[in-house]
Amino acid sequence: MTSVSGTYRRIVLKSRPPGEPSESDFALKEVPIPEIGPGQVLVRVLYLSLDPYMRGRMRDVASYAPPVGLGEVMTGGTVGQVVASNHPGLQVGDIVEDRLGWQEYGVGGGASMRKIDPSLAPISTANGILGMPGMTAYCGLFEVGMPKVGETVVVSAASGAVGQVVGQLARLAGCRVVGIAGGPTKCDFVRDELGFDACIDYKAVVDLGAALESACPDGIDVYFDNVGGPISDAVMLQLNMWARIVLCGAISQYNAAEPEMAPRLPAFFVGRKVTMRGFIVSDFAPKYEPARRIMGKLVREGQLKYREDIIDGLENAPRAFIGLLRGENFGKLQIRVSPEASYV
Amino acid sequence: MTSVSGTYRRIVLKSRPPGEPSESDFALKEVPIPEIGPGQVLVRVLYLSLDPYMRGRMRDVASYAPPVGLGEVMTGGTVGQVVASNHPGLQVGDIVEDRLGWQEYGVGGGASMRKIDPSLAPISTANGILGMPGMTAYCGLFEVGMPKVGETVVVSAASGAVGQVVGQLARLAGCRVVGIAGGPTKCDFVRDELGFDACIDYKAVVDLGAALESACPDGIDVYFDNVGGPISDAVMLQLNMWARIVLCGAISQYNAAEPEMAPRLPAFFVGRKVTMRGFIVSDFAPKYEPARRIMGKLVREGQLKYREDIIDGLENAPRAFIGLLRGENFGKLQIRVSPEASYV
Repeated sequence: MTSVSGTYRRIVLKSRPPGEPSESDFALKEVPIPEIGPGQVLVRVLYLSLDPYMRGRMRDVASYAPPVGLGEVMTGGTVGQVVASNHPGLQVGDIVEDRLGWQEYGVGGGASMRKIDPSLAPISTANGILGMPGMTAYCGLFEVGMPKVGETVVVSAASGAVGQVVGQLARLAGCRVVGIAGGPTKCDFVRDELGFDACIDYKAVVDLGAALESACPDGIDVYFDNVGGPISDAVMLQLNMWARIVLCGAISQYNAAEPEMAPRLPAFFVGRKVTMRGFIVSDFAPKYEPARRIMGKLVREGQLKYREDIIDGLENAPRAFIGLLRGENFGKLQIRVSPEASYV
Repeated sequence: MTSVSGTYRRIVLKSRPPGEPSESDFALKEVPIPEIGPGQVLVRVLYLSLDPYMRGRMRDVASYAPPVGLGEVMTGGTVGQVVASNHPGLQVGDIVEDRLGWQEYGVGGGASMRKIDPSLAPISTANGILGMPGMTAYCGLFEVGMPKVGETVVVSAASGAVGQVVGQLARLAGCRVVGIAGGPTKCDFVRDELGFDACIDYKAVVDLGAALESACPDGIDVYFDNVGGPISDAVMLQLNMWARIVLCGAISQYNAAEPEMAPRLPAFFVGRKVTMRGFIVSDFAPKYEPARRIMGKLVREGQLKYREDIIDGLENAPRAFIGLLRGENFGKLQIRVSPEASYV
């Protein structure tokens, strides 16, 4: 089978909000299912990953990736099922990870496509702990954070897609791990389910610095930062000599129209020999394969847990994404675009 | 008290052997106990550390440290007790780590001297797991080896002063750890007492490569090399992509008069993106303090074990040192120069 007829739905970017996005910045469009060319496959999207970086794609500014054009489909990682194939290595029914965007179908077959073995783990994990967020956690922690046995690691957005993995890996690496998350439900999960040594509810504490000091009696050696802003300012002040800051994200700033004012830290960083390094997970693309092998094993052994927050229906993606930027999700946020049963 | 009278014994370098040293390359001398000057202390040596690097000091070649002159006292790390003090921060009876060499007394008070708290751990550990060998293991593994959770770490001379610590730390860091050691006693200790996942007896196996392949089903990501030579050649061939070789020592080569011939590996290293890095522990001197704090805690908690091989009497230092180069010691080799009871 090389073609499927009919129409499908996609979500396009309608306008570029200067601040917090609203649902009216997106539009649902119905388009015909395309024909596939030589070497291509038609994929029915099962899971769409929603991630904070997508806010950056809505801005018309140069970054490590080009912005989404107005009227174009929103970009995003996907797990889907091949429904038509002109690709010698892929059969109808195969499960593939790709970056097909916010839509029900997409044409794959390029370099970004990866075939998934559904017997190894639930396929949604290819958007999560065994996908981009998991690789971000593993490579960011070990390649940039370089934790040592006995050090203290602090992770912000600790229950999020990346944070939950970072903290568990750092525990496995012999570190004391302290999370920062919003609300008692997330903090209980991080501490009781994921096994962090402590988790600070930044919404509940009056003095975040004092809470950090109490949770990190030996100071902080690695800060894995997913949030930026005042939370990070408080962490910075308690960094030990030789500390490393892994700049993974700054979700607190993504809706800001103008850069926020903040204390200047470089002089302090010199005195404490701090290394701060921003990274993009694709910097480490050549290391995905060994990382995925290790992470897959840890997941199957039950040494790494994960929590996904799955919302049904592509039409709910804009609202879910806006909630993600507000911290309303609980775990790795995904949209179930088509029921997974369809591929069984 | 600022002076002690009498004489004491020291061991000086008498000749520079081209190959394996013999006891006749050393001489025992009796010399008067010196007066101490302002800011100095007189130290009675309790423990002298014997380490493979000392073989290099016997050669008249430029290295990271100058050679020992003929007729001069052999260099070496020591733990001792202050018996006379002109130093404002040190009292008679204090225990200090310093580099006073192969002798019963020495004059301290310089930058290399460090006061030890005997209540934290047995004082001999200041020559071992909490001293130079322990710092070598911790800094070499984490600063150079950079192990990641789930990786495989191979350590040669696995029961030695450095190797035993490296392997335990790598286990605590979530790695699979395979040791290489000589003889069943050392291998049993490494596996059963220290908790390595496996230990290969290089004296017993016919095919070291096959033994490594069986012990390292996922290949080798970090090789912490204390021995060099054919053992290391066998490990190299099984390195994974992105592997790191921590070149700590090459005891198999220290007695060689001429460089041994060996397979050329750089082209292989390019293809596998291997990093090989030689290091000297003092490269990381600014990180000793945090490392010692962490290691001390792990020792007190029983998470890090250590084995010392202590020989009585300074006069036995040459024979013990020659045995060290042959792998005859079992654990961190030290000379008990004066009975420890003397300081209680």
